[in-house]
Amino acid sequence: MPAPSAPTVPAVALDLDAARAEYQALLAEGLALDLTRGKPSGQQLDLSDALLTLVQPGEARAADGTDCRNYGGLVGLPELRAVFAELLQVPAEQLLACGNASLQVMYDVLAHAMFTTLPGGERPWAQESEVRFLCPVPGYDRHFTLAARFGVTLVPVALTGEGPDMDEVERLVAADPSIKGIWCVPKYSNPTGETYSEQTVRRLAAMPTAAPDFRLFWDNAYAVHHLTEDRVELLPVLQACAEAGHPDRAFVFGSTSKITYAGAGVAFFGSSTANLAWYSALASAQTIGPDKVNQLRHARFFPSTQSVLEHMERHRELLAPRFAAVHEVLEAELGPLGIASWTKPLGGYFVSLQVPAGCSSRVVRLAKEAGIALTPAGAAFPGGLDPQDSHIRLAPSFPSAAEVRAAMRGVAVCVRLAAAELAAQSAG
Amino acid sequence: MPAPSAPTVPAVALDLDAARAEYQALLAEGLALDLTRGKPSGQQLDLSDALLTLVQPGEARAADGTDCRNYGGLVGLPELRAVFAELLQVPAEQLLACGNASLQVMYDVLAHAMFTTLPGGERPWAQESEVRFLCPVPGYDRHFTLAARFGVTLVPVALTGEGPDMDEVERLVAADPSIKGIWCVPKYSNPTGETYSEQTVRRLAAMPTAAPDFRLFWDNAYAVHHLTEDRVELLPVLQACAEAGHPDRAFVFGSTSKITYAGAGVAFFGSSTANLAWYSALASAQTIGPDKVNQLRHARFFPSTQSVLEHMERHRELLAPRFAAVHEVLEAELGPLGIASWTKPLGGYFVSLQVPAGCSSRVVRLAKEAGIALTPAGAAFPGGLDPQDSHIRLAPSFPSAAEVRAAMRGVAVCVRLAAAELAAQSAG
Repeated sequence: MPAPSAPTVPAVALDLDAARAEYQALLAEGLALDLTRGKPSGQQLDLSDALLTLVQPGEARAADGTDCRNYGGLVGLPELRAVFAELLQVPAEQLLACGNASLQVMYDVLAHAMFTTLPGGERPWAQESEVRFLCPVPGYDRHFTLAARFGVTLVPVALTGEGPDMDEVERLVAADPSIKGIWCVPKYSNPTGETYSEQTVRRLAAMPTAAPDFRLFWDNAYAVHHLTEDRVELLPVLQACAEAGHPDRAFVFGSTSKITYAGAGVAFFGSSTANLAWYSALASAQTIGPDKVNQLRHARFFPSTQSVLEHMERHRELLAPRFAAVHEVLEAELGPLGIASWTKPLGGYFVSLQVPAGCSSRVVRLAKEAGIALTPAGAAFPGGLDPQDSHIRLAPSFPSAAEVRAAMRGVAVCVRLAAAELAAQSAG
Repeated sequence: MPAPSAPTVPAVALDLDAARAEYQALLAEGLALDLTRGKPSGQQLDLSDALLTLVQPGEARAADGTDCRNYGGLVGLPELRAVFAELLQVPAEQLLACGNASLQVMYDVLAHAMFTTLPGGERPWAQESEVRFLCPVPGYDRHFTLAARFGVTLVPVALTGEGPDMDEVERLVAADPSIKGIWCVPKYSNPTGETYSEQTVRRLAAMPTAAPDFRLFWDNAYAVHHLTEDRVELLPVLQACAEAGHPDRAFVFGSTSKITYAGAGVAFFGSSTANLAWYSALASAQTIGPDKVNQLRHARFFPSTQSVLEHMERHRELLAPRFAAVHEVLEAELGPLGIASWTKPLGGYFVSLQVPAGCSSRVVRLAKEAGIALTPAGAAFPGGLDPQDSHIRLAPSFPSAAEVRAAMRGVAVCVRLAAAELAAQSAG
C-alpha cells in the first residue's frame, strides 16, 4: 500500500456555488466534533477497568516478594517485562518497565544522548556543531517537538508505504556524520498507517552510517493495535541490528497508553545490554524507580502475552467501525470526484487524507468554522510545514462511529468547497 | 538545637581488649539489619492501603469531570493540589501535581535550567564556564548526585541547627555569580533533623546574589513528618521571597512518598507564576501529563488538609518508638563515655550520629561485618567525603523498634571499639 500523493484538481470543474451552499448548510448544523488527537474513547478505557482493583490491601507484593509500595527497582517488575517482551520483540532481560509515558522515556534517552557519550560514540551530541535526525514524513508531531527541544535539526524523508525511502536514507546517513538518528514509528505508522517491510528493517539495521553513534529511535507505539484480523508482522529490530553487526543501533519504545489507560499505563524501553547499562546509570540519578504498584496492576491484568492480544481484539471491535465510517463516508462523498485519496490502515490510530495541493490548511480552517476540530494542517511535518499543503491527519478513535460519520460528511463538504475554490482560481 | 560536632576522644582511656571482646560477641550474634535508607516500614505503607481501591470502575472522573484514564492535564488534579497547597505553603494555583517522585521533578528543573534560560537569567547555565551550588552539610546524597550529573560544583556550607550558616551563605552568593543555587531540606532536614528558622528563611529570601538567576532548591520532603506533638513551623518561602522582592527565587518540591507510598505516590512542584510558565512550556515537550488516576486515588484518600495531618499522626505512632529506641540505646551505651553525640529530631527520617574524628568509616565497616548495614560514612557530604570522618546517618524507620534496638546496641559496640582503637593509636 503506497502512501497516497496529493491528487490534482480534476479537469471537470466543481460547481462553486453548489459547494458554497452545501457549506452554509453544514455551518447551520452547529456541529461540535473533535478528531484532533489519537485518544482512546471512553468505551476503550472501560475495557481495562478491572485493573483498577487488582491490587487490593495486603496484595501488593510482586512475584519475587518485592513490596511494590516501597522504593526501589529501577528495571520494573520482571513478570510485566516478560509479558511485553514478546510483543515488543525485545528479550525480557533487555526490556525495562518504566513510568507512565513512553514520550518521557524518549525525552530522557535523547536528553542523555545530548549530554553523555553513547556506547560507540566519541562525545555527547551537545558537543557536536550540529545534530540532525531523519524524520520520515508525514510523521508524529511530538517527535518533532522533542527533537526541536534539544536543537536537533529534522531532515524529512519520504515514506513509501513500506517505511522510509531507504535509498535516500542510506545515502544521507553514509555521507553525513551529523545525522545521529532517525524517528521511526515502524508499525501502523502515525499517521500513514504503514508498516516497515522486512527489507526496510534489514536495511536500517545494516546500513553504514558516518556517525559511529547513530541510533534508530524505534517508537513501536502500535505494536498490537490491529484494525483487522490480519495481524501485520514487523521484523524484530534488535535482532536485525545484532545480526547486521550493529547491536547498539536501536532504542525501542512502547507503552500501554492505548492498551490500558492513556497516561496511567506503563511505558517500556528496550535496547542492547550496553545501551541499557548506559541508560540505567543515568536514570539512577534521576529516579528511585517507577510506580511498581501500577506495574503490578498491569501484570495481574495481563498474565500472558496471549491475554494482551485478546484484550486488543476488544479494542479492535470498538475501533474498526470508526475507521470503517471514515472510509465509507469519504468513498461515498469524495470517491467519485477524484479530488482526494486516503489510507485504509490495517492498524494504529490514524487515517492520512490527501487533498489537492494548496488545500489542506483551507479545509482544516473551514472544518473548524463548522465545528469540526482536525489536527492542524502541516502538523505531521517538521515545523508544521507541509510543503504541498495537502495532508490532513484524521483521528477517529475518540468520537462515536455516528459522530465520525457526521464529522467526515462535514470534512467532505469542506474538501469539495476548497477544491472548487481552487479550481475557480485556476480558471480565473 | 545546634548540630552536634565531632566529640574528641575522652581523656579516660577506653579498654581496647574489652571493646574487642564485645565486638567478637556481636559478630557471633549474626545480625542482619539495615538502617541505610529512609524507607517507610511495611506497617507505615499499610496505613494507606485504603487508597488502592478508591478508584473503582466507573468512578474515574475528577471533580471537574475529567476522565482521569485519558491523556491530558499537565498541571495535575485541582482537588489534590488544593489539599497539598496549604501543607507545602504554596498557593494552589502555583502548585503542580506531578509524577511519582519529587527527585524526578528536581532533576527536570535542574536539567531545564542547564539548557533553557530561567526567568531573570541571561543564558542557560550550561553556557556558563562554571555552575556552583551551595550545599549545607551534612545533606542528602541524592541532591549531590543530581548536581554532579550536570557538572555542578558543590560548595559545602555548615549547618547551624537552624539552617545553613547564613553569614557564609550571604558572603558567597554576593561575591560569586557562578553560584546559581542552594540545596535546602528546610524542615526536619536530612540528616540533621533541623528546621530552618524564620530568620534563616528571611535571609535566604532577601540576600543579594551576584547571579541574577539564583534559585533556592527547596526540597520540603518532610513538611508534615512530625515525630512529636510539637509540630515545628517553617516560614513559607515563596511568600518570604515575594515580600523580599525576589518572587522567582524559590523552587518548592514535595511528595507523598513518605505519606502514602514510596515510589507510588504523587510529587508536587510549586513556584512563582513566571517560573511555572517556564517549566510548563518545557514539560509539555516531555510528557502528555502525569498519572491522574493515581492522583485521583490520593485526592479521595485525602479529602482535606486536616485528613493528611491526621494520617501523619498514625505515621508518628509507628516512627516515634523507633526514634526513641535510637536515643535510649545510644544514651545508655554511649552517653556516659562522652565519645559520641547525636541529634534527637522532632521530625523527619534520620538521626545524625557524631563519633570521634577519624572514626566514622571504621564504625560503618565494623557494623557491616557484624551484619548491620549503615549509610556509607561520608554519604552526607559532597563526593562522599566527610572531612572529619565523624558523621554517621542513622535511618531507623524501616526495621521494627526491637530491630532498631538491636542494631543500635551493635553500633554502640562498634563506636566503642573504634574509639578505643583510636585512643590506643594516640597513646602508642
